[in-house]
Amino acid sequence: MFRHQKELQYEVKVDRPDPMLARNVQEVLGGQFGEMTVMMQYLFQGFNCRGEEKYKDLLMDIGTEEVGHVEMVCALISQLLDGASPEDQAKAAEDPNVAAIMGGVNPQQLIVSGLGALPTNSNGVPWNGSYMVSSGNLLADMRSNLHAETQGRLQVSRLYHMTKDEGVRATFRKMLARDRYHQYQWMAAIAELEEKNGVVVPASFPPQAEMESQSEAYKLFNFSEGEQSKEGPWARGTAQDGTGDFEYVSTPKPKGKAPKMAVPAVELHHDLTDKSTDK
Amino acid sequence: MFRHQKELQYEVKVDRPDPMLARNVQEVLGGQFGEMTVMMQYLFQGFNCRGEEKYKDLLMDIGTEEVGHVEMVCALISQLLDGASPEDQAKAAEDPNVAAIMGGVNPQQLIVSGLGALPTNSNGVPWNGSYMVSSGNLLADMRSNLHAETQGRLQVSRLYHMTKDEGVRATFRKMLARDRYHQYQWMAAIAELEEKNGVVVPASFPPQAEMESQSEAYKLFNFSEGEQSKEGPWARGTAQDGTGDFEYVSTPKPKGKAPKMAVPAVELHHDLTDKSTDK
Amino acid sequence: MFRHQKELQYEVKVDRPDPMLARNVQEVLGGQFGEMTVMMQYLFQGFNCRGEEKYKDLLMDIGTEEVGHVEMVCALISQLLDGASPEDQAKAAEDPNVAAIMGGVNPQQLIVSGLGALPTNSNGVPWNGSYMVSSGNLLADMRSNLHAETQGRLQVSRLYHMTKDEGVRATFRKMLARDRYHQYQWMAAIAELEEKNGVVVPASFPPQAEMESQSEAYKLFNFSEGEQSKEGPWARGTAQDGTGDFEYVSTPKPKGKAPKMAVPAVELHHDLTDKSTDK
Amino acid sequence: MFRHQKELQYEVKVDRPDPMLARNVQEVLGGQFGEMTVMMQYLFQGFNCRGEEKYKDLLMDIGTEEVGHVEMVCALISQLLDGASPEDQAKAAEDPNVAAIMGGVNPQQLIVSGLGALPTNSNGVPWNGSYMVSSGNLLADMRSNLHAETQGRLQVSRLYHMTKDEGVRATFRKMLARDRYHQYQWMAAIAELEEKNGVVVPASFPPQAEMESQSEAYKLFNFSEGEQSKEGPWARGTAQDGTGDFEYVSTPKPKGKAPKMAVPAVELHHDLTDKSTDK
Amino acid sequence: MFRHQKELQYEVKVDRPDPMLARNVQEVLGGQFGEMTVMMQYLFQGFNCRGEEKYKDLLMDIGTEEVGHVEMVCALISQLLDGASPEDQAKAAEDPNVAAIMGGVNPQQLIVSGLGALPTNSNGVPWNGSYMVSSGNLLADMRSNLHAETQGRLQVSRLYHMTKDEGVRATFRKMLARDRYHQYQWMAAIAELEEKNGVVVPASFPPQAEMESQSEAYKLFNFSEGEQSKEGPWARGTAQDGTGDFEYVSTPKPKGKAPKMAVPAVELHHDLTDKSTDK
Amino acid sequence: MFRHQKELQYEVKVDRPDPMLARNVQEVLGGQFGEMTVMMQYLFQGFNCRGEEKYKDLLMDIGTEEVGHVEMVCALISQLLDGASPEDQAKAAEDPNVAAIMGGVNPQQLIVSGLGALPTNSNGVPWNGSYMVSSGNLLADMRSNLHAETQGRLQVSRLYHMTKDEGVRATFRKMLARDRYHQYQWMAAIAELEEKNGVVVPASFPPQAEMESQSEAYKLFNFSEGEQSKEGPWARGTAQDGTGDFEYVSTPKPKGKAPKMAVPAVELHHDLTDKSTDK
Repeated sequence: MFRHQKELQYEVKVDRPDPMLARNVQEVLGGQFGEMTVMMQYLFQGFNCRGEEKYKDLLMDIGTEEVGHVEMVCALISQLLDGASPEDQAKAAEDPNVAAIMGGVNPQQLIVSGLGALPTNSNGVPWNGSYMVSSGNLLADMRSNLHAETQGRLQVSRLYHMTKDEGVRATFRKMLARDRYHQYQWMAAIAELEEKNGVVVPASFPPQAEMESQSEAYKLFNFSEGEQSKEGPWARGTAQDGTGDFEYVSTPKPKGKAPKMAVPAVELHHDLTDKSTDK
Repeated sequence: MFRHQKELQYEVKVDRPDPMLARNVQEVLGGQFGEMTVMMQYLFQGFNCRGEEKYKDLLMDIGTEEVGHVEMVCALISQLLDGASPEDQAKAAEDPNVAAIMGGVNPQQLIVSGLGALPTNSNGVPWNGSYMVSSGNLLADMRSNLHAETQGRLQVSRLYHMTKDEGVRATFRKMLARDRYHQYQWMAAIAELEEKNGVVVPASFPPQAEMESQSEAYKLFNFSEGEQSKEGPWARGTAQDGTGDFEYVSTPKPKGKAPKMAVPAVELHHDLTDKSTDK
Repeated sequence: MFRHQKELQYEVKVDRPDPMLARNVQEVLGGQFGEMTVMMQYLFQGFNCRGEEKYKDLLMDIGTEEVGHVEMVCALISQLLDGASPEDQAKAAEDPNVAAIMGGVNPQQLIVSGLGALPTNSNGVPWNGSYMVSSGNLLADMRSNLHAETQGRLQVSRLYHMTKDEGVRATFRKMLARDRYHQYQWMAAIAELEEKNGVVVPASFPPQAEMESQSEAYKLFNFSEGEQSKEGPWARGTAQDGTGDFEYVSTPKPKGKAPKMAVPAVELHHDLTDKSTDK
Repeated sequence: MFRHQKELQYEVKVDRPDPMLARNVQEVLGGQFGEMTVMMQYLFQGFNCRGEEKYKDLLMDIGTEEVGHVEMVCALISQLLDGASPEDQAKAAEDPNVAAIMGGVNPQQLIVSGLGALPTNSNGVPWNGSYMVSSGNLLADMRSNLHAETQGRLQVSRLYHMTKDEGVRATFRKMLARDRYHQYQWMAAIAELEEKNGVVVPASFPPQAEMESQSEAYKLFNFSEGEQSKEGPWARGTAQDGTGDFEYVSTPKPKGKAPKMAVPAVELHHDLTDKSTDK
Repeated sequence: MFRHQKELQYEVKVDRPDPMLARNVQEVLGGQFGEMTVMMQYLFQGFNCRGEEKYKDLLMDIGTEEVGHVEMVCALISQLLDGASPEDQAKAAEDPNVAAIMGGVNPQQLIVSGLGALPTNSNGVPWNGSYMVSSGNLLADMRSNLHAETQGRLQVSRLYHMTKDEGVRATFRKMLARDRYHQYQWMAAIAELEEKNGVVVPASFPPQAEMESQSEAYKLFNFSEGEQSKEGPWARGTAQDGTGDFEYVSTPKPKGKAPKMAVPAVELHHDLTDKSTDK
Repeated sequence: MFRHQKELQYEVKVDRPDPMLARNVQEVLGGQFGEMTVMMQYLFQGFNCRGEEKYKDLLMDIGTEEVGHVEMVCALISQLLDGASPEDQAKAAEDPNVAAIMGGVNPQQLIVSGLGALPTNSNGVPWNGSYMVSSGNLLADMRSNLHAETQGRLQVSRLYHMTKDEGVRATFRKMLARDRYHQYQWMAAIAELEEKNGVVVPASFPPQAEMESQSEAYKLFNFSEGEQSKEGPWARGTAQDGTGDFEYVSTPKPKGKAPKMAVPAVELHHDLTDKSTDK
């Protein structure tokens, strides 16, 4: 169960509205790695958690913080839109300076939301549930979380240069700091889990089942001409599991045959003229 | 530029068709972490790479391998569908045993593709470009790649238990082994990049800009009641950057105010009856 | 069965082309509450109607009118695009005034449709079936219809201010008038249905089944600090069903426990290190 | 800013797992009118609210409650999946009784989420941002909210009959009661707003602008043969605004001409053979 | 402007309900090549048509017919669902024969639409605007139309075998016959347009502009090992334009270099460690 | 199995960056008929091919070529973005000339991909699997392929006029030439298949089954007033199958009745007040 208080986690106070920036900020609200994604991802991972109370509590701490980050970014977008009006578009027909701005404004922020934040990315594509991850395997999910905060901080740092407005930048700095902590945090969790279970996910897949394919787990196949990739730590030395040595295969050969499928039933209406496949 | 040879990278030879399994295998072809995702992700990362020839070559090696994995999984699905026919559905009306199977068959594999693989997940949702990541920051992308292989291997390992067919399992074992190598490989790349640039992404965001928010980068806020999360390596000791100490905040307080937005222009038709906001 | 005549329901005659406006008008064609939505919504509700001939006929009257509205908005967009050409983009590289326009033009209206209307919203997101509603419950659907016309008229009224073109505005005025009628109309239908069945949907859910939870149906829980919401007609007096009194709960308490789930089978590969859940 | 406590708002305790039901319950979690929709809709409406503190507080009260409802439904789905395993699918090949169940199980709840709730509807389609509404006009949004709770309660009432499990039904009864209150509540808000501003949205669109089209705002056009729709309160009497009388038009005539568009520039490559349009 | 009459174009009368078939029939209503697609495609092509009155009238004839086909398929689905109830799902828990059916039933046809047709395909994915085509080039669109009817008839012919119900089959036969006519019709239109403009689309792209690449327009590159494709009419003889001869290139060579891109600005935060690209 | 070499199939060398053009070029990379579509379409058709080795080899030849075209268009987009920076957006606030450009720049090419190509169309909508076709019927698929190349060449020819940059145009000319060959090629394949099987797809649907509807397969129904469509080769003479004569029906009459559906079970909660349907 959740509760809300009216104050924001951090101050959001824009010096000057900037509707073009408002479009761009949508990316870190409703984009692939926006605040909606981390909010829903951490909440679902927490809700779905079976055992591991320490992690569940951590996920709920951060997931709940992220609901507040969605709130902050919505406030930021709203303030960037303050004073915008549909009439600006009518003026664009007469004034190229206005047209220049309107070309970069998201029309839905005027027509659809009436100066409010939208649940979409910077191109207006709606947020959707396939942006988030909740797999049931903790290490898998922690890697997803580290990755999400990585992309999130990268995107905010690019947005930071898109404005000189000190009010906006102050908010971005708080977001950058929190994305930094969240990177530390998931890294720490990953290190702890890898310590317990090993580095390969899932750890519990029975190794004997994979025995026949053991050698395939250490090879880099050179499928793209040029051997620059040979010069990396993934191509020599012992693997992180300590049980196999990396091997570089300069000229990979196929180990299977060309596939064979049966001729389909006539009710599928392939209209085949050459039925030689299954001969 | 690419070339193709007819043989598969690994053998695909199903002992017995199983159309219900064919539906499920779609998840690792066209799902969020299926072969289509890693194929497109590595190819785009390679195509978009600016500098870093060693990594570009590596991405092209693996991306090209993954086109061949899409090919293998398509062959697997086709063979699992061998012999299926639309008539099975008509028989379902009379025979509950047939109905039991048909309930779990993907109708599009009969009606739309005529026993072929579909570019969709196990529920028939089409693959889409927002499953993949190509950010321009190498460490960010390598974390995405490690994560994708992690989820991919997890899903294949679950699928492995969904059949006793030794032919199918042999193919899964090859996929598991390669997903294992790819985990090792991206881990090695990550370690190398973290060594060079530090663990926080992006490394190049000017630290002085973030100075004012420095303290926010080490705090775990207890937004979810209960303090189990305090018992983790993310809540005590020194952060991975070596310059700050983690802090656990039991009772977080808001640092911002309730947000204020201006009353909108009448042309937005909010029909406000209470215009007190901007007073 | 349907028939078409060449004349439009209302005149569409633009004074001057305006390709930036053409992008924006797409919102009321292929957006969440555009003409495509009401057309498909009323047609499906009519097609799916079981009994209630009076309503079915009404739905078919309006659904058929809306096919003609799609036709009108397509004509409007096409005329706004008259004279546009891909060469304008090439000129944008030299002339900032042209660039200012091209920034706000939908590139697909040049590249994809060749100056025709697109089945998308103002940001180019394709119309999709989850915008529409057909539930089988008449009162539920009438509320959806009132809502759709409400949003539709709101959006057209915002668009109205985006141009001074009297030809365009004349078309918008007809659309505004029809959206007004449709609001009256669905309100009248709703009043009639609420009169018959009561105001709660569905009316037929057996009240005795809900008895144990009866008290929960009248409470406003104060989950967001501050008690301004207490000052509304939803927090005091008797509910619209006449059988319960509203109650304001200042400090809501949880009535459930923290949830418990079983430890999953090892075949799901959660790699749990803490299996205390089911103890 | 938000806070979380571990207990659920209401008890969730399933008597017996039922993975087929778990698939179906997804509809009211991640479907068009599931808990994710009302949660995001009320939060965004609250975050975007400009003025109208009473309503903003109300929206935040209910939006925050709904985050907790997402939590409850996730717990419900997880418990319904307790004990399910990928091996069930392998057994389906041998046992028609198992196959009968597996046909109705969502494969992603095994392969993707590992027995957790998914951010999707009952057919596995991911939740997306175009399910929700936040328009800036309070009456428009309240009508959306009433509609959402209407569809939500309708869907839960249908789900109620899909199980005899008393534990599940108890949870559904709480949800039905809350959806009932929320219908009362939004109805009360609508009545208050209609009282202030009139029943037509938006109220502020200048009526003189619409004068020329005034008569079009009261007509029901008989576009579908048969005159059953004439027998309704929308076809006779005075409109709800008190300023016009409804009119039934038995044989509607077009008031516009067939549309004319210019021949496009050759750079659009229409390859027209008949260029008579603009003559 | 459109009108509707109550009778269907062809009889729809199901002998016996069959809810599993109702799920499957959704494919030809709301799938990629279902009736919604051809309806919207022909209407948009007709609405967007500039000149070419003969074709515009043809498109409106068929587009209007297809609205009636959407109506027919909705009626078919509704009748296939007659008598289904949410209680069937509760019975599935006890009776494997019922479970066998319920596994193949679309849960949304019970929970969401209340036994009505849905605007989705057979897997529940909503219809969307990117299924349809309206390009402004008549020959391009006619090829799309021929293709759509081709896929449509193929899918209906597969569905035909999914039932023995003579009522359902009678409706399918009418659909098959109309899809056959529509194939003839678009073929005839294509032949006429190819006669006028030549077979390559667009005809109007200035050939001199392409001169330098002329030789590339007749070559088949053997990018997949094996030379079976050499044995086809596309690899020898004169092209359909009569001005070039096909050429088979056994061992294609790249004609470009490896691409070069500039090192990005530091504000993009690529964190490059190897900046050799632009040297 | 696939291999990659570093050189591009054709030279890609832009004279001058042009970030507005970079947005537009996305259409032919990740749009409905972009290179991703033909690549995935030909690969899936090839992978799914059952028999017909000559066609399978052809599909693999072209599908493999198209992977290289995706590579080329990615290189083109990257070069068009060379030198762009997030700071340009900050400058837009001060300089209308910069604003004019930024309005037409895709913000995701800065924020998300860091100057790389995106798997989306020109409006930022992600590529998805429902753009492609693989049906199992060769003639059906070849018609799809011809259509895709037709739309592809049309779009590239429109893009060609959007720039004067000779480097860009040289790449477009190669693409135009290849799209031309691919049109020839699929036309040749279609002619061969129609020769073998006849022009109607599927050929194998038993004609006797359709006998009762035979006459419906030759009629053009005049559903849109005006008889211009009568003046075409689809309305007179003998059909392409040589067995029926086209017929123009000036005033089509319905051949079915108004549909009837049963009153639904009370558990569906239609709340019907008029249950006359089944009387």
